[in-house]
Amino acid sequence: MHSVDIFDSTLRDGSQAEGISFSVQDKLKIVSLLDELGVSYVEAGNPGSNPKDLEFFRSASRMCLKRAKLVAFGATRRRNIHCEDDANLNSLLGAGTPAVAVFGKSWDFQVTEIIRTTLEENLSMIGETVAYLAAAGREVIFDAEHFFDGYRSDSAYAMRCLEAAVDSGASTLALCETRGGALPHDVFSATEAVCRRFGKRVRIGIHAHDDSGCAVASSLEAVRAGADHVQGTLLGFGERCGNACLATIVADLELKMGLRAIPDGSLDQLTRICRAVAEIANVRIPNTAPYIGRSAFSHKGGMHIDGVMKNPASFEHVDPEAVGNERRMLMSEVAGRALLLQRIHAVAPSLGKDDPRTVELMDILKRLEAQGYQFEGAESSFELVIRKHLGHWRPYFELVHYQTTGVHPLAAETDETHTAVVKVRVDGQSAITAAEGAGPVNALDQALRKVLEQFYPALKAVHLTDFKVRVLDSKSATASKVRVLIESTDGVRSWSTVGVSRDIIEASWLALSDSIEYKLLADGIDPPQDL
Amino acid sequence: MHSVDIFDSTLRDGSQAEGISFSVQDKLKIVSLLDELGVSYVEAGNPGSNPKDLEFFRSASRMCLKRAKLVAFGATRRRNIHCEDDANLNSLLGAGTPAVAVFGKSWDFQVTEIIRTTLEENLSMIGETVAYLAAAGREVIFDAEHFFDGYRSDSAYAMRCLEAAVDSGASTLALCETRGGALPHDVFSATEAVCRRFGKRVRIGIHAHDDSGCAVASSLEAVRAGADHVQGTLLGFGERCGNACLATIVADLELKMGLRAIPDGSLDQLTRICRAVAEIANVRIPNTAPYIGRSAFSHKGGMHIDGVMKNPASFEHVDPEAVGNERRMLMSEVAGRALLLQRIHAVAPSLGKDDPRTVELMDILKRLEAQGYQFEGAESSFELVIRKHLGHWRPYFELVHYQTTGVHPLAAETDETHTAVVKVRVDGQSAITAAEGAGPVNALDQALRKVLEQFYPALKAVHLTDFKVRVLDSKSATASKVRVLIESTDGVRSWSTVGVSRDIIEASWLALSDSIEYKLLADGIDPPQDL
Repeated sequence: MHSVDIFDSTLRDGSQAEGISFSVQDKLKIVSLLDELGVSYVEAGNPGSNPKDLEFFRSASRMCLKRAKLVAFGATRRRNIHCEDDANLNSLLGAGTPAVAVFGKSWDFQVTEIIRTTLEENLSMIGETVAYLAAAGREVIFDAEHFFDGYRSDSAYAMRCLEAAVDSGASTLALCETRGGALPHDVFSATEAVCRRFGKRVRIGIHAHDDSGCAVASSLEAVRAGADHVQGTLLGFGERCGNACLATIVADLELKMGLRAIPDGSLDQLTRICRAVAEIANVRIPNTAPYIGRSAFSHKGGMHIDGVMKNPASFEHVDPEAVGNERRMLMSEVAGRALLLQRIHAVAPSLGKDDPRTVELMDILKRLEAQGYQFEGAESSFELVIRKHLGHWRPYFELVHYQTTGVHPLAAETDETHTAVVKVRVDGQSAITAAEGAGPVNALDQALRKVLEQFYPALKAVHLTDFKVRVLDSKSATASKVRVLIESTDGVRSWSTVGVSRDIIEASWLALSDSIEYKLLADGIDPPQDL
Repeated sequence: MHSVDIFDSTLRDGSQAEGISFSVQDKLKIVSLLDELGVSYVEAGNPGSNPKDLEFFRSASRMCLKRAKLVAFGATRRRNIHCEDDANLNSLLGAGTPAVAVFGKSWDFQVTEIIRTTLEENLSMIGETVAYLAAAGREVIFDAEHFFDGYRSDSAYAMRCLEAAVDSGASTLALCETRGGALPHDVFSATEAVCRRFGKRVRIGIHAHDDSGCAVASSLEAVRAGADHVQGTLLGFGERCGNACLATIVADLELKMGLRAIPDGSLDQLTRICRAVAEIANVRIPNTAPYIGRSAFSHKGGMHIDGVMKNPASFEHVDPEAVGNERRMLMSEVAGRALLLQRIHAVAPSLGKDDPRTVELMDILKRLEAQGYQFEGAESSFELVIRKHLGHWRPYFELVHYQTTGVHPLAAETDETHTAVVKVRVDGQSAITAAEGAGPVNALDQALRKVLEQFYPALKAVHLTDFKVRVLDSKSATASKVRVLIESTDGVRSWSTVGVSRDIIEASWLALSDSIEYKLLADGIDPPQDL
């Protein structure tokens, strides 16, 4: 099977994204994950421009990688000096990586207007730099910056830039669509011309950005034109609109184009590895991300749900398990009776569809939806509703009362403007505590978990990862009904719960207490015999 | 200039996205915005499957649209009945729209396995439905569902489905990439074949989904192959990974392919209109969204910033102003100066741009925006900030303190779960009162207006018409910063104000007090000499 090198730049180009920054520890963890996925190259820093990256490369050199080669990134030598005298180039070698990626200009405008040198000197900069690094025993990947703009502006000069790199010993020419402006068909034809000219001597690569919304497609078109090296970032992080998203590209190459991008048996780890990288980067993967997003195989429309229940291929382009993701049928007013029944059966398999309890439960669900509940993002609350109604449920705690108080201004400057008092009863014992927070919901959240941890130490691992408020009928202004959606995690599992009320505190209370009940249930902890 | 019809389905296919639901009022506002942008068609509902949509179409029929045609959506008639007896088809006509989009199967597998009828009956369903709707005076757009899968499986049959629609009077064939699995080059070749066969008789359209991360590119490839009708949703909302994002496609068509997609002079409204639609949908546009995202023209890397300062074309594929967005320099803090200046001049036209007060004001505004304020939907708060800073302002009241208390459970069943106490000082006199409400914000709102009405009777006419809460950094969970947007009216004027805080009560207080101050200012009421 024809294979394509995957070159990940999450730690270099990805760190140029707004809001992204990595510690050395973060970077080491991400290198391991990328190696586990099986990419060919991990570009992990720019030691010339960032001295902290040298520290990282020193730690990384002790890692045992199965497959990935570490790559350090830097510019060609500066104009009018010798390579030996260029501090950046020496830092690049100092990183001690088996491969280096070195970028140079291949657009005449960039040479004369931005770095302000002559076209001939730029060719020398490329050739001498590649030769210098190759002579030091490095595998040299030449990143032809702005190649597609250069090819459009002066294709002969752009080709001469590539030739300088090839003649000096580069192993790979990565054609960079730096501004992200070219459309896929332009990328195809320029790449095809490069492959025709240099494809027998070196590998040809593509490096695309998403400013036209086409980074994935441009990368695939380059491969169709003959490229066999694809640069990008696992989750699409990068300057401006981001780099080409490798998660999507890897799945497209393997599942759609019949090419080998990562080792056999890795693809079904894709979703898990992507989510782990996102967690380290402290970024949410968009629900709609192809292949790996939470909604990528979610079905909401009634006809879609009906079709997928008959045959998943009716509305799914690939099997979600192929990429380690899962199918979800969303509960909503447009979902049919069949789905409701399926959900009920997950809890009570023996319940017939005409059983009066089933019919009653369906009524309850419809009534809750009419009140503003939405279970499509809150499967855990939904499961609790079913269990409670069918009597498969004993509560873990009983609320005696809560009280929240907010005062403004406070005597001292603090974020903690509110106090909550919560009293609960568990197994005949009652307990009361208080906590402060930024706002009443935060205070209540703190107090509830604090008072319950003494009974259920497992709750210490729980924290919230998402909190959403939706005003349902905003015309009723401050008396509007609100829906609060909460996502919780214990570091292993994630679950989501929902509450609806005119009172945002009560809506939050409902979602918070469902979250706690669900965690205890999922852990298999026995509820007390008596409250 | 060659032109392409833009067909927006935010209100139909977009509402199939997880987490998206629109009220009738939301839908009417979005129709207006899409018409302002200048799309050709707005597909706004499925009256057969959702009776609420009929109510919407009745209200919408009274709207005066400049350009957009309203479209109702529905299926071909059910198998083995007459069109006249099909309730869904009659609802579709009942919507009273000038155009209808009707979808039918064009993949043999879907016909035999999912809707479970014969291939011949499916052709009759398509032909008779199109003829029935055309005879009723409707422009009929035929959505050939799963066309690309059908073309791969049995191209002759897929073409016969199209032929049935063309022969019965369809104006447009929209080729649907329903599962989102085809890659752009496959879309190109199939679309080219259809254009060759039917392009002289009808318009050919494309409807793509993003499951392979290629929806935009596939749409553009279809246009290159001869299509002149593009379906999608403005912000890419849709089932699973979403529909093709029209914001990106429109900009690509106009700026990259030299085609006309929306009327002259509309493109620079793109960012504003997209953000307004996102606000109504209560969805965040990803920062990295091409053209319209907050980071789309943001520069972080040192070399990029240096290049852009020398010449923006070095790292920007188009001018951000072409789409109404702005450049941001993330490191240099010189962001958005011109834009801010423009906003200040709207309030204080005589203020020079180098006036120290202007410079200081710009700093304040930048600081507020960094805190999460957004003045696009809250012009009145913005005007107050400027007035306060320029000394064109004396306060109408001073808050001495407020306190909110919520208790659960209450002794008696009531909606009013919270009490607020507010003490203010006006012109040397202080006053204190309390009020109850459904939740702390509602109680505070009631108490503030009640205590001030004795000093300013004009406030009796004020009530709130809209209240929105946006969690800004939902990863901080219940301690997240929230932005509260309030819309107020006195029956004559409407105005909107904003507040930001980690504490939802404080954020609401800021927006509520701005609302009251603005009302008194707009009425020309003199503030007291002394508080």
